[in-house]
Amino acid sequence: MTGRKIQIFDTTLRDGEQVPGCKLNTPEKVEIAKNLERLGVDVIEAGFPISSPGDFNSVMEIAKAVTEPIVCGLSRAVPKDIETAAEALKFAKRPRIHTGIGTSDSHIKYKFNATREEIIERAMAAVKYAKSFVEDVEFYAEDAGRTDNEFLARVCEAAIKAGATVLNIPDTTGYCLPHEYGEKIKFLKENVKGIDKAILSTHCHNDLGLATANSIAGVLNGAGQIECTINGIGERAGNTSLEEVVMIMRQHPYLNLYTGVNTPMLYPISQLVSERMQMFVQPNKAIVGSNAFAHSSGIHQDGMIKNRETYEIIDPKDVGVDESLIVLTARSGRAALAYRAQNIGYSLSKEELDIVYAHFLKIADRKKEVHDIDIHELMKIVNISIA
Amino acid sequence: MTGRKIQIFDTTLRDGEQVPGCKLNTPEKVEIAKNLERLGVDVIEAGFPISSPGDFNSVMEIAKAVTEPIVCGLSRAVPKDIETAAEALKFAKRPRIHTGIGTSDSHIKYKFNATREEIIERAMAAVKYAKSFVEDVEFYAEDAGRTDNEFLARVCEAAIKAGATVLNIPDTTGYCLPHEYGEKIKFLKENVKGIDKAILSTHCHNDLGLATANSIAGVLNGAGQIECTINGIGERAGNTSLEEVVMIMRQHPYLNLYTGVNTPMLYPISQLVSERMQMFVQPNKAIVGSNAFAHSSGIHQDGMIKNRETYEIIDPKDVGVDESLIVLTARSGRAALAYRAQNIGYSLSKEELDIVYAHFLKIADRKKEVHDIDIHELMKIVNISIA
Repeated sequence: MTGRKIQIFDTTLRDGEQVPGCKLNTPEKVEIAKNLERLGVDVIEAGFPISSPGDFNSVMEIAKAVTEPIVCGLSRAVPKDIETAAEALKFAKRPRIHTGIGTSDSHIKYKFNATREEIIERAMAAVKYAKSFVEDVEFYAEDAGRTDNEFLARVCEAAIKAGATVLNIPDTTGYCLPHEYGEKIKFLKENVKGIDKAILSTHCHNDLGLATANSIAGVLNGAGQIECTINGIGERAGNTSLEEVVMIMRQHPYLNLYTGVNTPMLYPISQLVSERMQMFVQPNKAIVGSNAFAHSSGIHQDGMIKNRETYEIIDPKDVGVDESLIVLTARSGRAALAYRAQNIGYSLSKEELDIVYAHFLKIADRKKEVHDIDIHELMKIVNISIA
Repeated sequence: MTGRKIQIFDTTLRDGEQVPGCKLNTPEKVEIAKNLERLGVDVIEAGFPISSPGDFNSVMEIAKAVTEPIVCGLSRAVPKDIETAAEALKFAKRPRIHTGIGTSDSHIKYKFNATREEIIERAMAAVKYAKSFVEDVEFYAEDAGRTDNEFLARVCEAAIKAGATVLNIPDTTGYCLPHEYGEKIKFLKENVKGIDKAILSTHCHNDLGLATANSIAGVLNGAGQIECTINGIGERAGNTSLEEVVMIMRQHPYLNLYTGVNTPMLYPISQLVSERMQMFVQPNKAIVGSNAFAHSSGIHQDGMIKNRETYEIIDPKDVGVDESLIVLTARSGRAALAYRAQNIGYSLSKEELDIVYAHFLKIADRKKEVHDIDIHELMKIVNISIA
């Protein structure tokens, strides 16, 4: 791997798990954390220890269970939160406390009823206090997406001064467009004194369907860490999908960005998270959906059979999927039918194929999908047997 | 509405319907087409008439059933396809034939075994032939995303010369990054002779999770039409989500782009398409997912209750959703519990809330979600009755 390494910060067990219906118990969280370690993520955000005794316990058990990745606990810029996070992380080989505060005018006014100067003071105090427990402190500027860039730069500068090692720039409401988010990261990279002492981190939400694009815009403009979740789960419309950002960097080598992710584990871990959280993955989910590598239209199937690369930019094996599929429907053409028939033993002449195809279309117009068993029936009708 | 109007070309019934398991019969397609007309889309791609007798019939019935939108039928650059599309569209008030051919080196070599010059000739012939049936002819340059820009510009110029009114620039494999796709559109806008006689159209696939961002990059660089589907359905990882691109333009008025879409119909039509195609919408789908407006973490709920705008960039009513939800889980804070308790009749003092909250956390750690009925039980335990 050449180029700049981008840290993958997985928050499936924190931001992902705070979804209605997705709560996990401690053994389930430990199981997922161990798989995230095998996947090769750099940071596991294990939970928000102050939020409940169950969550505290999960963070502690994950900290004991994994060795390689940094284990991170969330806190607000409140002493009790930070102490509790530190306590939950005490067995971690590589602990990180994640603390922060809202920085947009909307948050400052409505959530904290404070002034900008007070927010900077509280941010610094929180980072310093966290730093008294652990070396690695990540600071989040909540609603950074809607925070004025000049003020955001001041907050970041203060956090670095207080000892922050990572600066998280969340687009909390998922409102930014990719070029805007990219410009924000660029502005910080160019205007925050001491920025080279810290890693800028993206944390994007998908409310407008842009989380992945915003995260990529962030790293292209100098961010060094992406916060994301397996399957893109998360509150409301979810977080950035880990599998999407990883595969974008892998499939565009000229970007000179790489990650430590072991991509053939992407599909298995997607399935694991989906099952444990009982949060289904839509069939058309990029990379890990059941249809992600399924080709059903005639035009596409014909191209695929002639040369896979015509329609497929990722080899399914690279993400742990066994085989891409040629699905037979009323939209399929002769080539697809011949291909599937051949797979189960029928070699058709051009004339035979024409006859079979006419019958096939009638069946396919009635059925959603034509399976191998239907092909066998079809062959009986036209009196063709296995070659 | 001010600014530049972007045409919404809905291909739910063509590119969306060619998904394994999503096949619809003619009455279902007509029902969806009538709803797309109410939604206010500019173009309905109704099907691929040559592909099957059922699809031919659906295009014909849709052409009869709708008045306002253009009705479009797909064809390859093959005379029989084009004739069949014209026949299926003969009752349309505003018919459009969509025809085209692969233009990337990979398609030219493996799919057509042809040369670049031959492809240009076939493209021109197809557009001219389609033009002999209808005035409005859209040309697609399949795999434009991987087509060299200079050659793509030559193909576009030829298609315009032959009479094309719309030029569709598909990122067929979903490989482009937003800045690349935007630059491609910009290149065509600046280098194709006669480009002002035609509308450039985006057609993006979501294989890397970037379809929405790419479409927006396209219109920001001069495209005038977006091809998309309800719920982002489509082959493999699907197409651009109609609801996402529409809401991005609506929520960023300074972009000076608008559409004719009646946004409060977005949620109802999403539900209709999902039901008819039996293709579920993931809970964390942007805009139309069941969790899109659900807030469950303590930090977020507290902010939401103080001021909705803290975490919500879209008023759920604007997309036809009745109410955003405060969901109670182990991640919820005191404010959320007090809010939901108040909603069902309990006014709690600060002391009462502390007591109830401790019990609430125990229940919430065991359960995925705490419902109103659980709150009533909780109040019994701590002996509080409705005020």
